[in-house]
Amino acid sequence: MKSIIEKYGHKRVVIVKGGITRHRSIFNGLKVFVENEFSNHLLQKPEVVIIHDAVRPFVEEDILSKVVMAAKEHGAAGAIRPLVSTVIASAADGCLDHSLERARYRASEMPQAFLFDIIYEAYQQCTDYDLDYGTECLHLALKYCKTNAKLVEGTADLWKVTYKRDLYAAESIIKDNLSQQVCVITDVKEAVAQIGFLLHETLKSQQIEAVSISLSKSDSHLQNIFSGQCYNFVCINDKKYAIQEAQQLVDMLEKSNLPLLYPVVLILMHLDISENISFSIGIEELTRIKKFAGEMKKKNILVYGLLIQYKDHLVLQKIVNSAAALIMALIKDRNPELIGQLLVA
Amino acid sequence: MKSIIEKYGHKRVVIVKGGITRHRSIFNGLKVFVENEFSNHLLQKPEVVIIHDAVRPFVEEDILSKVVMAAKEHGAAGAIRPLVSTVIASAADGCLDHSLERARYRASEMPQAFLFDIIYEAYQQCTDYDLDYGTECLHLALKYCKTNAKLVEGTADLWKVTYKRDLYAAESIIKDNLSQQVCVITDVKEAVAQIGFLLHETLKSQQIEAVSISLSKSDSHLQNIFSGQCYNFVCINDKKYAIQEAQQLVDMLEKSNLPLLYPVVLILMHLDISENISFSIGIEELTRIKKFAGEMKKKNILVYGLLIQYKDHLVLQKIVNSAAALIMALIKDRNPELIGQLLVA
Ligand SMILES: [Mg+2]
Ligand SMILES: [Mg+2]
Repeated sequence: MKSIIEKYGHKRVVIVKGGITRHRSIFNGLKVFVENEFSNHLLQKPEVVIIHDAVRPFVEEDILSKVVMAAKEHGAAGAIRPLVSTVIASAADGCLDHSLERARYRASEMPQAFLFDIIYEAYQQCTDYDLDYGTECLHLALKYCKTNAKLVEGTADLWKVTYKRDLYAAESIIKDNLSQQVCVITDVKEAVAQIGFLLHETLKSQQIEAVSISLSKSDSHLQNIFSGQCYNFVCINDKKYAIQEAQQLVDMLEKSNLPLLYPVVLILMHLDISENISFSIGIEELTRIKKFAGEMKKKNILVYGLLIQYKDHLVLQKIVNSAAALIMALIKDRNPELIGQLLVA
Repeated sequence: MKSIIEKYGHKRVVIVKGGITRHRSIFNGLKVFVENEFSNHLLQKPEVVIIHDAVRPFVEEDILSKVVMAAKEHGAAGAIRPLVSTVIASAADGCLDHSLERARYRASEMPQAFLFDIIYEAYQQCTDYDLDYGTECLHLALKYCKTNAKLVEGTADLWKVTYKRDLYAAESIIKDNLSQQVCVITDVKEAVAQIGFLLHETLKSQQIEAVSISLSKSDSHLQNIFSGQCYNFVCINDKKYAIQEAQQLVDMLEKSNLPLLYPVVLILMHLDISENISFSIGIEELTRIKKFAGEMKKKNILVYGLLIQYKDHLVLQKIVNSAAALIMALIKDRNPELIGQLLVA
């Protein structure tokens, strides 16, 4: 935990040692505000506390502010969701006793928010049995403080990462979110700019937010793109080894701290319009991209090569479509094993 | 639905028109057994019926036989799972009324099994309100036939594909299942066989079930591998265009019906041990693999090229490790956009 906080530079976080059950951990967290009231300005007793599960990483700001507002008014509030399955009670013999009418019940999810004094009071009053076997904070507030929590409809994002399949789902959701925006970087030469324009339009027609900049006046534009959280860059160049140009972008990426949280995808797209009919890719070129990609990997930047070769303007759109499909496949997969490969559109 | 049944050659399936609610659809399904008793041998009234949701595609045979056996004994049986969240009841004002003790309740899942006469009787007796607003078959059997269903603990596989994230999870689970086994095909030449052996060992050390066969005596071996549901093939060859050899495998794959349900991955691994220092890949080779891969795609076979080049035996294991990593990445992703690309280990 400490290394995570250091790595991402969180300044307003205090770690509290957990207990052997969920409720004991939460109680430990609450106690710190009372016991350390005068020693640390971060630990001044708050009016409202939010309790959340780390296994619900996709929580949105909107639901946080909703439960906080409701807690101010009602003393307690929690997110709820419709039940996915019918809930049943079993008898001692392992047979059905009764089933609950699904429409009348809800699943209690997180986040929950409380007036500090109410939830702290509830934890002080509750029994060891509650602390060892209970799981529901709203229940404690009701039982010990007579506080009927306000229930706030949450979105499907609040789901709990519980099983292996949930890790798969979480990974896909993150990759999906990172793939919505692509920045296309070109230099001013005509052929390069033309391909850049076509690629931009093709990506846009696929509901991808495409941003184009030319390398010559990139600085302030790029800063805007970095702060817009764009995690995907395509550099189009007609030089065979455009690694120097890429290095310039990499330096700026590093300064921006963008690759700290998620891997950035950088596709080096080489435009070959030579008349040479017996075109071939030399081992030196392959080795060079691989070596560069290996170094960039350490900076959490995933580099892939993409070659476009055409002599005939009539097939240009077809080749750009093929390039766009490869670009989107690379961006969506973010596969670290494929870095340094040179794909051909 | 009809096209699916035809495509996959299902012989023992009858489609029944659904109703406007879950219960009405199930009732329609049950009625067919009574109304058509003498017209079709598939529709003879069964002793036990299993009711299942199509959105729970990972159901295992084990739980099916468990609910059937329990239904024979108890008249009804259903799969259950522990609750993931606390279940709460809300009052009319949208505030918490009470929460249920999580340990005493279970989520009712599918499959469920019933003696036909019991569940059919229950559906005949039940009200329009039940048919329109109810969802739980176990509840009908209890209410109208006094049958307390036996509850059978199911595995996490029974989860219901409900949200978009569940589709992501389902896709990853299927791809994971398809990636457990790789068949390495070599010819008898020494260099090729050696690489094949090293690759086999490297995959095995990564908990992948590797099967090796040599091309010369492939026929009956391959039939065994097809029937073992292996969906991944690596053909190692030292000829530059090993497409003819691959075609032989493709023909056998087609006959086996293996690519009908899931895409088969076929990696053409070209071993280059020429002394030629200025090694390069020609555009003809690239075009050739791409064209072949495009044709194979129509047969649901995903073809990728993989080049291994080495002159120094000391680095052989390192290159094989790199090849194994690329092979596993290609197999796990099964990305149709990357077919026909030539990767370099
Ligand atoms: Mg809770
Ligand atoms: Mg049900």
